[in-house]
Amino acid sequence: MRTIIGVMGTGQPIDPPAQTVARLLGKLIAEEGWVTLTGGRASGVMDACSRGAHEAGGLVLGVLPDATADGASSYIDIAIRTGMGDARNVVNVLSSDVVIALPGGSGTLSEVALALKSGKPVIVVGWDPGAAMRASGRVIDAHDPHEAIELTRQSLARRRP
Amino acid sequence: MRTIIGVMGTGQPIDPPAQTVARLLGKLIAEEGWVTLTGGRASGVMDACSRGAHEAGGLVLGVLPDATADGASSYIDIAIRTGMGDARNVVNVLSSDVVIALPGGSGTLSEVALALKSGKPVIVVGWDPGAAMRASGRVIDAHDPHEAIELTRQSLARRRP
Amino acid sequence: MRTIIGVMGTGQPIDPPAQTVARLLGKLIAEEGWVTLTGGRASGVMDACSRGAHEAGGLVLGVLPDATADGASSYIDIAIRTGMGDARNVVNVLSSDVVIALPGGSGTLSEVALALKSGKPVIVVGWDPGAAMRASGRVIDAHDPHEAIELTRQSLARRRP
Amino acid sequence: MRTIIGVMGTGQPIDPPAQTVARLLGKLIAEEGWVTLTGGRASGVMDACSRGAHEAGGLVLGVLPDATADGASSYIDIAIRTGMGDARNVVNVLSSDVVIALPGGSGTLSEVALALKSGKPVIVVGWDPGAAMRASGRVIDAHDPHEAIELTRQSLARRRP
Repeated sequence: MRTIIGVMGTGQPIDPPAQTVARLLGKLIAEEGWVTLTGGRASGVMDACSRGAHEAGGLVLGVLPDATADGASSYIDIAIRTGMGDARNVVNVLSSDVVIALPGGSGTLSEVALALKSGKPVIVVGWDPGAAMRASGRVIDAHDPHEAIELTRQSLARRRP
Repeated sequence: MRTIIGVMGTGQPIDPPAQTVARLLGKLIAEEGWVTLTGGRASGVMDACSRGAHEAGGLVLGVLPDATADGASSYIDIAIRTGMGDARNVVNVLSSDVVIALPGGSGTLSEVALALKSGKPVIVVGWDPGAAMRASGRVIDAHDPHEAIELTRQSLARRRP
Repeated sequence: MRTIIGVMGTGQPIDPPAQTVARLLGKLIAEEGWVTLTGGRASGVMDACSRGAHEAGGLVLGVLPDATADGASSYIDIAIRTGMGDARNVVNVLSSDVVIALPGGSGTLSEVALALKSGKPVIVVGWDPGAAMRASGRVIDAHDPHEAIELTRQSLARRRP
Repeated sequence: MRTIIGVMGTGQPIDPPAQTVARLLGKLIAEEGWVTLTGGRASGVMDACSRGAHEAGGLVLGVLPDATADGASSYIDIAIRTGMGDARNVVNVLSSDVVIALPGGSGTLSEVALALKSGKPVIVVGWDPGAAMRASGRVIDAHDPHEAIELTRQSLARRRP
């Protein structure tokens, strides 16, 4: 069974520096041989990260809120169509072995919280989800995608005896 | 169609002062003639709030994570059995006209985030979900259940022209 | 906790005789003191059955596929808004103590199948869901709403020692 | 985006001839270059079909009812963990471009019905889901896996102008 790394983050348009970060993260995940999971839509972090992973030859899963693949990123290989709206956020985090969160709004915060609820490690890259989230003791800070990958590697190693 | 007020909060055991707050909130919701919605289980805020509403003669909906009513609070009238685990948190917030959040952990934080994502007003009683949550501009602070009810009344009034 | 009877059936427009059956069924459920659960929309069996129950003073739950109550029947008291599309069919059947199915299409057939999968008794009024469904041994035939109520009473009695 | 073929069927133990059919079907799907989607568990049609696809070098998605991969088939590559019980059946059919149904019980019948509800073509191999299901006009009969693949090819061709 392949290792799946979920990348969460805003679905709103992002500026070039944020795009660079998201694309690099996708590229690095692909280079590790891991599968990239995103929310699958053609916008924001989802699209940029999927692009980075796809262009590096990685396999990309998009877990979509809609019942069809309309509006999906053109960089995903596998479109999981849920038709469940935000309830697909639960599928995103449960299906990920590690969750990496780039900056985002309430959707991303819900994914961070749901990941913590299900006991997943959550690596936050360059933003603060707040003290209430950190109370779980499972929020891990990374400064950039390279550090996020290193921390992901460590999290995966801890989970496999 | 009846007004539904969702009360979120920890599912862990709570101390007597926290129980008093949750029960009082349920009682006040019932006295307004509103339906109380909780996560339905026999623990923490869910149980105490359901009890307060039930004992004041209110109607209580419990939206359960499990497929059966095993483990449900004995103070709920209607057991919505979802069998969907944490995905039921989405049902909790979408079915509520206003969401009131008492202190809680990652489950409660996911409900606050999902409520904000869906455009619901969220009234937080006596705790801080963090600056990232507040960035939405829809988190409203209340100091106690009485103020929460007053703010709920105002939120409902704004939504109905 | 109150007994909930789920009534399934087509969401397409129905002719006057079919409306009479659905309304009568809702009325009889209300007269037993049971809660009526439907798919909640303002069409077909959902609307007619909700109307019958509502006009007889019963409590009506509508479990909606959408995230809002737009398009909901005006005869439901409680709008459970799931935003999950057809996945709400699972909530419909799990939340019902007994499922009664009036004639319907593939949506209704999915609810019959999901109810059987979860071990619920399914009472079918005046149509045939097919031999494959009957292989479960839990499909019960009723000729009219009165017989459906009698069979529901028996099913409930068997479940409560 | 890759073509996904969903294979549904009983989760109960199956006899050697049924295993041969399910494994052959998985093998043929893989040989077409399509992704195989199953319910992901280590039993019945799910396991045998996943095995056939995996051994032929195909990519296999398992959409699991549970929140973890415990009990998953060892032949799946990608474990979509939903934690949603039977509500994952909706994800199974929406994520499939064509649904192929081998003999099964009420779970399989729910997937056939949900697939028809969402407008997907359903190819039934060697069993009868009943006249009520066939009323949709979208149930297609195949006698064996080879014919199912040929009919799948035709269904896919019709969907892509």
